[in-house]
Amino acid sequence: MSGLDEERLARAYLLRVAEPPAPALHAFVADQGPLAAAKAVRADDCPPRVRDETAARRDVERAEDDLAVADRLGARLVIPEDDEWPAWPLLCLDQAGRRGVQGMAQPLALWVRGDARLDTVTEAAIAVVGSRAATGYGEHVGGELAYGLAGHEISVFSGAAYGIDGAAHRGALAGSGVTVALLGCGVDAGYPAGHVALLNKIAERGGLVVSEYPPGTSPARHRFLVRNRLIAALSQGTVVVEAGRRSGARNTATTAGVLGKVVMAVPGPVTSAMSIGCHELIQESGATLVTSIDDVIAQAGKLGALPGERASARRPTDRLGPDALRVHEALDRGQGKSAEEIAAESGVPLVRVRALLSALEIDEFAQRCDNGWKRSAARRGRR
Amino acid sequence: MSGLDEERLARAYLLRVAEPPAPALHAFVADQGPLAAAKAVRADDCPPRVRDETAARRDVERAEDDLAVADRLGARLVIPEDDEWPAWPLLCLDQAGRRGVQGMAQPLALWVRGDARLDTVTEAAIAVVGSRAATGYGEHVGGELAYGLAGHEISVFSGAAYGIDGAAHRGALAGSGVTVALLGCGVDAGYPAGHVALLNKIAERGGLVVSEYPPGTSPARHRFLVRNRLIAALSQGTVVVEAGRRSGARNTATTAGVLGKVVMAVPGPVTSAMSIGCHELIQESGATLVTSIDDVIAQAGKLGALPGERASARRPTDRLGPDALRVHEALDRGQGKSAEEIAAESGVPLVRVRALLSALEIDEFAQRCDNGWKRSAARRGRR
Repeated sequence: MSGLDEERLARAYLLRVAEPPAPALHAFVADQGPLAAAKAVRADDCPPRVRDETAARRDVERAEDDLAVADRLGARLVIPEDDEWPAWPLLCLDQAGRRGVQGMAQPLALWVRGDARLDTVTEAAIAVVGSRAATGYGEHVGGELAYGLAGHEISVFSGAAYGIDGAAHRGALAGSGVTVALLGCGVDAGYPAGHVALLNKIAERGGLVVSEYPPGTSPARHRFLVRNRLIAALSQGTVVVEAGRRSGARNTATTAGVLGKVVMAVPGPVTSAMSIGCHELIQESGATLVTSIDDVIAQAGKLGALPGERASARRPTDRLGPDALRVHEALDRGQGKSAEEIAAESGVPLVRVRALLSALEIDEFAQRCDNGWKRSAARRGRR
Repeated sequence: MSGLDEERLARAYLLRVAEPPAPALHAFVADQGPLAAAKAVRADDCPPRVRDETAARRDVERAEDDLAVADRLGARLVIPEDDEWPAWPLLCLDQAGRRGVQGMAQPLALWVRGDARLDTVTEAAIAVVGSRAATGYGEHVGGELAYGLAGHEISVFSGAAYGIDGAAHRGALAGSGVTVALLGCGVDAGYPAGHVALLNKIAERGGLVVSEYPPGTSPARHRFLVRNRLIAALSQGTVVVEAGRRSGARNTATTAGVLGKVVMAVPGPVTSAMSIGCHELIQESGATLVTSIDDVIAQAGKLGALPGERASARRPTDRLGPDALRVHEALDRGQGKSAEEIAAESGVPLVRVRALLSALEIDEFAQRCDNGWKRSAARRGRR
């Protein structure tokens, strides 16, 4: 862990005191910065909605312990102030939140096990998800798809459950690919017990084990659902391999759709209860039927989300910090806006907006126009 | 066989001399009537395109023999002049032909085995088709769907091949339903050999065995493709249960789509070569994924094509002969047309158009307006 120690301690504290997703706290931190926000929460001197999210645990002072425990596990806390923070993929959560979708707040920070950079693994990433009670067919197909993604240097994102999640990680590992497990519990929870060795292998072989829950947090059903938004947000598309009529994998797929990601489903025998959810996603939710790795890549490629384009497009945007991204988000392509308007819309202080606009202009993300600022035409191809 | 003996003989002759589909001959017969058309073909006194279609066999005088053979088989020749001619369902072939789709001519008549009325069995009908080389899964699902259709008093239409076709007929028979086999050979060809008993059972148990090919015609690949348009036209929707990458069932589905019918496909394991065609139909051709009889009925019901509506809508239109249908087809809902314009568009002689328009007015199919005639608003709900 290097630098930004105060911010990291502040965010470790905030992650401990608020149960994700904590949209009011996230907005408060974005507005005040983590240090001032943590101070205000500790002092119980914060807006009512932030107070609601933090009141129950604001006295829990475990940040240093959590960081120490994580360190012993070979884990770290990645914060938005870090270079490796996956700012672009997570922006879609803000956008959905602004559209009024509940529960879409960005994480305040992420606990991460494994050596890979968190931003790098999200560059080209597909979520492969499905039922715990998978059939042999589903495990075979999930494993094959993940193996194929590995061969195309696309990261596999999934949960850590038995069934499809495990098959996906094993398939990616068999293909020497990068695979990322998002947990609904602490990275040290050892859950599910039968996957402890698999999770260790993921972290050791170039993948990541990721959670927004502090070390020691136990698994819970609502946490898996909250976690699903991160699987959907951090990947460019989600493939549901098998899902029963009620299935957490369908929740991930629905969230991916809300976030504007590609949603895909693998068909199966109509006689199999484990394919009902996939068929319903195709029939009712507009998921695209995919039968092979080629289908998955073709679909994800339609959004311009996979390698090639990203490889060349990545460098410039990676230099932008979270405030710059928010300012950029507030810019239109057509009409210009004043710095004041941009400050109001992005929530970034006006003085900082002015500085960032100049920086964005140099990097060709923004350009001046008659009535203010707009997005640069040079970057029209970016999402 | 009762009445219309001359027309029946003429059409039996014409079916013998032209290989279906024979669009020029069909148009010629529609224009001249079967007696004059047969006379002109025999005399080699017909338009060049009709001559092209009939030159090779115009000397084959087998009409009386064909009718006698059919009679011995318990078969009959149903002609457009008969009450039981399924004029409405077949109209879509004319419409497609006018849009320039090749090979969509109506049949000149149909050889039919079985006691059911041909028009009645098409009132509520779904085609269930698929590969000869079906898997156990496909045969199970095809049989179950047909059984379910039987339970809803919906006729099953299919070919007579091994695999899905046979499973569909057996399923419908098991459900005591009406099932109709469309052949690509004569109704007496005994093809495929292993399905002779099945075809007999279909004809004996309230279903029909149907072909536009005269008795004795041998099966041929191109005839199965030509036959497919009748399966598609005579049903309100087509379900493909299993289909390989190249499959005649896909041809039927594509034709059904061209004819404006509901196209459905059953998914299966992505590891099964016999489901590739179904998945591609869903991915590339807009076929609707269906997993159950409920799905099939819901889909077909969307076009208002199945019972209920049809039951009440049927009576009036069944009284219309082919000329009246063509005149009705030529009418618009919005703008009026003169009788001359309608004659030109329908190809029905002006004097007959005038008489038919009055008849159509009485039946509320047509109404007078400022500048001539248009379709009656009272029947707006009809297709």
